[in-house]
Amino acid sequence: MSNLKNAVIGQSGGPTTVINASLAGAINKYLEDENHGIIYGAVNGIKGVLRSEFVNLNEIFDKKENIDLLMQTPSSYLGSCRYRLKKDSDEEIKKIISVFKEMDVGYFFYIGGNDSMDTVMCLSDICRDKGIKIMGIPKTIDNDLIGTDHCPGYGSCAKYIATSVSEMAQDAGCYDIKNVLVVEIMGRNAGWLTAASALARDEKLSAPDLIYLPEKPFDEEKFLYDIRQKLLNQNTVIVAVSEGIKYSDGTYIAEDSKETRKDMFGHGQLGGAGKKLEFLIKKRLGIKVRSVELNILQRCAAHNASLTDISEAFGCGCAAVEAAFNGESGKMISMRRTDCKKYQIEYECLDIKKIANGEKTVPESFISKNGNDVTDEFVKYAAPLIIGERNVIYKNGKPAYISR
Amino acid sequence: MSNLKNAVIGQSGGPTTVINASLAGAINKYLEDENHGIIYGAVNGIKGVLRSEFVNLNEIFDKKENIDLLMQTPSSYLGSCRYRLKKDSDEEIKKIISVFKEMDVGYFFYIGGNDSMDTVMCLSDICRDKGIKIMGIPKTIDNDLIGTDHCPGYGSCAKYIATSVSEMAQDAGCYDIKNVLVVEIMGRNAGWLTAASALARDEKLSAPDLIYLPEKPFDEEKFLYDIRQKLLNQNTVIVAVSEGIKYSDGTYIAEDSKETRKDMFGHGQLGGAGKKLEFLIKKRLGIKVRSVELNILQRCAAHNASLTDISEAFGCGCAAVEAAFNGESGKMISMRRTDCKKYQIEYECLDIKKIANGEKTVPESFISKNGNDVTDEFVKYAAPLIIGERNVIYKNGKPAYISR
Repeated sequence: MSNLKNAVIGQSGGPTTVINASLAGAINKYLEDENHGIIYGAVNGIKGVLRSEFVNLNEIFDKKENIDLLMQTPSSYLGSCRYRLKKDSDEEIKKIISVFKEMDVGYFFYIGGNDSMDTVMCLSDICRDKGIKIMGIPKTIDNDLIGTDHCPGYGSCAKYIATSVSEMAQDAGCYDIKNVLVVEIMGRNAGWLTAASALARDEKLSAPDLIYLPEKPFDEEKFLYDIRQKLLNQNTVIVAVSEGIKYSDGTYIAEDSKETRKDMFGHGQLGGAGKKLEFLIKKRLGIKVRSVELNILQRCAAHNASLTDISEAFGCGCAAVEAAFNGESGKMISMRRTDCKKYQIEYECLDIKKIANGEKTVPESFISKNGNDVTDEFVKYAAPLIIGERNVIYKNGKPAYISR
Repeated sequence: MSNLKNAVIGQSGGPTTVINASLAGAINKYLEDENHGIIYGAVNGIKGVLRSEFVNLNEIFDKKENIDLLMQTPSSYLGSCRYRLKKDSDEEIKKIISVFKEMDVGYFFYIGGNDSMDTVMCLSDICRDKGIKIMGIPKTIDNDLIGTDHCPGYGSCAKYIATSVSEMAQDAGCYDIKNVLVVEIMGRNAGWLTAASALARDEKLSAPDLIYLPEKPFDEEKFLYDIRQKLLNQNTVIVAVSEGIKYSDGTYIAEDSKETRKDMFGHGQLGGAGKKLEFLIKKRLGIKVRSVELNILQRCAAHNASLTDISEAFGCGCAAVEAAFNGESGKMISMRRTDCKKYQIEYECLDIKKIANGEKTVPESFISKNGNDVTDEFVKYAAPLIIGERNVIYKNGKPAYISR
């Protein structure tokens, strides 16, 4: 039997806690084939391919203990990038193909979100002509990729949010005084993460008492009214807000409280919605108020990752390699929920053209009528995604990681 | 043998992840005595005593599973207060004594920090006259109580900080661009928690690259110079700063960036040092910069608590009850390190008058000469305190807690 061609894998976009689990899944599957060649890691995503900067993953990950460490290492082991291929010339694409030819590459796997799938799409037609299989592996904490039930990365971030909100609710409720805690959660246009704060609730805990997503226009007077109503019956009110909540005219509420910087894809870097609401509540209600921005903590808390999420991220990595071996190309692995009663998913291949540059926001049926909460239907959807914990390897009192 | 008198226990001051472990230790030890009476929990600390608001802890904690849940529940199960007894009249003290007499209370245990030990001191002379034993149980994330090697609550907070800083270092370092991450850590006057960020380091991780404590005057030009120097040799610079860093004239650097509110003890509520430095770096160095405020997350992250800390908090609760049974009163339990090579501690009783209202800051020998780091001596001191993890009980994907 002839040998397999070599493979290249890259990671792109914002970090998640499980993007390395997808890397581990792909490495594992590729090396499982007894005729395997070399699987190279592109350093800093597609930029690494353009620069011919690679690491040999066969050598590092022939040890099972390194795969174990990789599975619990947050962020991108290979380094990441936010780089979109130039569409007005095919120079970059030619360069990439020549690098792949030189390295005898037959498979290219790219783990990333919306913007990264654009790279997969740009390369897919020309790769097909050259006999190189290219597959996208989904990854985003934002859960906003279309065509998949949910995205690897979301479940762990959701678990961190649920855990932190329930812990902070214990903290904020310890004095017998009226107070409000505003928790600012990531999510520019899609409120999936902020919605996940509802998973903090149980029989005894009502927190978060109010939830505001970017899908609904934000009204300050309605917000203050909602809080006043809650304060009638309880001392502590916990509010979860998305960084991306906007007034009805479409301006971000954080916009005038912080300079808006733009990243390479033209997205504004937000932050400050929580702080803005803290000052609003203090000024208008005159009670003790605090705001907490979960910031990047929510996307790198690998020590509290969801086992379901880790397993699925690993599974997506495996599925991508398997699909490429079966001749698939220009596709992204997606997950379909096959059984809703007893949570179960299946991996599928979706045409990349149907996915790239799309964005899935939280549907109406998941948002409460008055726009300050989520529905039971959302909780049913999200609850299985945070289940399970990995047995984290600690060293000197903190989780052990692997780095290049 | 005659029956033991009843006991009252209260929790006071800011929450920690292990203040409930001390409660568990005291309950356990009291109920272990076969002649025990009732141990009452004062709701919201000394305010609960003044209002005669108690819960019967015998009934709740005869189930071992409830003790297990209590051990992993952050914040104060009994509710807390920030209340200092009025010193210009003895009305409150008389009220407390009359409540205790009515309930046949022979033991009063108070878990708290500096301000709470003031309450223990106020009551200790009169309690002695009335045959009531009163014992203080130390608790503070700030590690600033004098007379004890360290404080229960510190180790878990330190473990959270070490874990988070190492996770965020993975995150911040994922792109191949120059960037700075400023992590703002709690600590008004004492830099113990910020110093603990050094525990994030290992053979491969240099983060945090710079550490600034409130014990040393902060100089903006020196700070920018330090960062520029680090950026010469690395892409990502992680900086840990205490919320309480001050200029040489004694003003907090956060003071002009946020209104300073005062709490009941006259302490300013700070916050904003990180944000202030983020803007300073952006303006002066013009590079990508982000600030993360660990905020209350650091003091309630029970899911990542230090087993050493939990065990010692439990031990302090036990030791307080044991000491009271042995006739001690007007004292606080402290910990002495008996063996430095192989970390080991012993519990002792310290006269409350020597402790109350004192504050232990980070000594010179723990701070590097140029004021932007800690010494190896500090690391040797702090490293054992974050060791070990509890097997946390999860329910529906998040840690299970007990609440009143």
